[in-house]
Amino acid sequence: MFDEKKLVSEILGRNKNITDVFFAACGGSLNDLFPVHYFIESESKKLHSMCKPARELVLIDSPRWNENSITFVLSHSGNTPEAIEAAKVAKKNGSFVIAITNDKNSKIDDSSLYDDLIVYDWGTSVSHKDVPMGIEFRIVNEFLHQTEEDYAKYDDMLDGFDQIDSIIENAKNIQKDSAAKFAQKYRKQPFLYILGSGASTSQAYGFAICSLMEMQWMDCAYINSAEFFHGPFEVLQDDKVFIQCINAGKTRVLDERSRDFIEKYHGQLEVIDANKFGMDKIKDTVVDYFNPFVFYEMGVLYRDELSEKRGHQTDFRQYMGKVDYSYKSDVE
Amino acid sequence: MFDEKKLVSEILGRNKNITDVFFAACGGSLNDLFPVHYFIESESKKLHSMCKPARELVLIDSPRWNENSITFVLSHSGNTPEAIEAAKVAKKNGSFVIAITNDKNSKIDDSSLYDDLIVYDWGTSVSHKDVPMGIEFRIVNEFLHQTEEDYAKYDDMLDGFDQIDSIIENAKNIQKDSAAKFAQKYRKQPFLYILGSGASTSQAYGFAICSLMEMQWMDCAYINSAEFFHGPFEVLQDDKVFIQCINAGKTRVLDERSRDFIEKYHGQLEVIDANKFGMDKIKDTVVDYFNPFVFYEMGVLYRDELSEKRGHQTDFRQYMGKVDYSYKSDVE
Repeated sequence: MFDEKKLVSEILGRNKNITDVFFAACGGSLNDLFPVHYFIESESKKLHSMCKPARELVLIDSPRWNENSITFVLSHSGNTPEAIEAAKVAKKNGSFVIAITNDKNSKIDDSSLYDDLIVYDWGTSVSHKDVPMGIEFRIVNEFLHQTEEDYAKYDDMLDGFDQIDSIIENAKNIQKDSAAKFAQKYRKQPFLYILGSGASTSQAYGFAICSLMEMQWMDCAYINSAEFFHGPFEVLQDDKVFIQCINAGKTRVLDERSRDFIEKYHGQLEVIDANKFGMDKIKDTVVDYFNPFVFYEMGVLYRDELSEKRGHQTDFRQYMGKVDYSYKSDVE
Repeated sequence: MFDEKKLVSEILGRNKNITDVFFAACGGSLNDLFPVHYFIESESKKLHSMCKPARELVLIDSPRWNENSITFVLSHSGNTPEAIEAAKVAKKNGSFVIAITNDKNSKIDDSSLYDDLIVYDWGTSVSHKDVPMGIEFRIVNEFLHQTEEDYAKYDDMLDGFDQIDSIIENAKNIQKDSAAKFAQKYRKQPFLYILGSGASTSQAYGFAICSLMEMQWMDCAYINSAEFFHGPFEVLQDDKVFIQCINAGKTRVLDERSRDFIEKYHGQLEVIDANKFGMDKIKDTVVDYFNPFVFYEMGVLYRDELSEKRGHQTDFRQYMGKVDYSYKSDVE
């Protein structure tokens, strides 16, 4: 059982003057980091945060990436070259590196690459507080609790983690029929848009790039609900297909606004509304940060239903892990 | 003539302890702010920066958005409701607000909404140092010069501004034939991808959402070159169309990698390479930050050529400014 109190004590034991947090990963793993970055941006008075594709972070090598920082490096396989590079640079810069992986015997399991290595289990039976996003939220929640006097959401976050698993089970049951109908109707759809916002920006994006592009080879695009009205909406016609993720919490108004517009102008609209799944069991103060858990699972649900109707297995790849797309690293 | 020295003196005269910069805008204007946010993330030891769609920034209302911050609010029309909201919240939070607009007689021209109002000219004859992105870069460059001893790129940035106009003229001439051929060949293309990275992430994104979705009603999607290998590349087949923006500078390796892969696996690939336009006239230390100026203009060039071949005027809208999509603001 991962113990965030112990880890935070270890970090603060080494350096009480932490000012920055860096988040480095790629693709689906990057999407698991973004909501925690968003949490820091929204809640911390003292910490500043930067979240980028791992190799971009390495190439930028911000002057603030130093001994007063914590770095989260997440790689499911533990072998992602960009993540390994980021861990190397973070260590060289003196950052406290928390490496997170599903595979204990992978390349990231090298003590020169991290200060703390967290190995998580993966599968439908694992609680959402023990998946990477849950672990990262718990670490930052604990860190803010121990270092910022004004931070008042500690218990609300812990309580949220006691609720989220049953909410997600609920969500899967409630949304399953819609997902199956959507898959039947749009199994041959050449292209569609996925809209979302706020903390689950990255899950709407991941719905597009991981669930549909990677695992179904379907063309699609992610659009931020708030940005929809500043360009993208001009493509709206009655033959265009949109999946609208609607958050619970503060940013809900952004998602409702794009939903209403698409409805009014007769777009083909699939709505996934977090408020229908019992999110009111989570305190208003922190409900925003639990949307990403819900929308990750919704991406999986729609992907699986599409897989059934399209006869395209979700683990079938043409390039990933099959052809060479390595690159020459400049990091020593 | 806008004087950034005077503005920076005014900011520092009021508060020498600036720690944070906030960037608030929507759509095309947001894309003009992002590269300057990226510049701060890459170069500043002291400043931290947050750049979001204006209304999302308002809803988050970060605890660091306070009297020790500067806020850039950009609205071309000066009437964008989300930008006006952001200016209100920024002022209420005690931030030093720099409002930037093309229209002196717009809603943002209200002294309760800003500390400094900058009105810029717009058109092909205006130097890139005097468009919003140029103005913002000059302000931040001056600010870093006056406040951070280690900041050593001040003169290189100023020199870059002396070069960028002729580089862009060059770029337009060099790329025009390719853009015309692309427009002829792909005038009926139902969907395409645009890839880019680094400082011009927002210009590749803007190429998609402004130049093509808004002004040509064409379906397309932006993908970060670094993220391409972590999901998106599985859609690659020989009938898929990609426009690859290739930066000069540090992040070039990201763009070259996706270009090479698309080429190898026979995607239909249009390359726009900043290095072909004379970017070597700009110092290596700062060349990254001038890519966005180039790729903004490339989006315009391809849009205009597509407009000619598709018979779709670039100022024709079905929704923007024509139908009601207002929202009820909670900001007083």
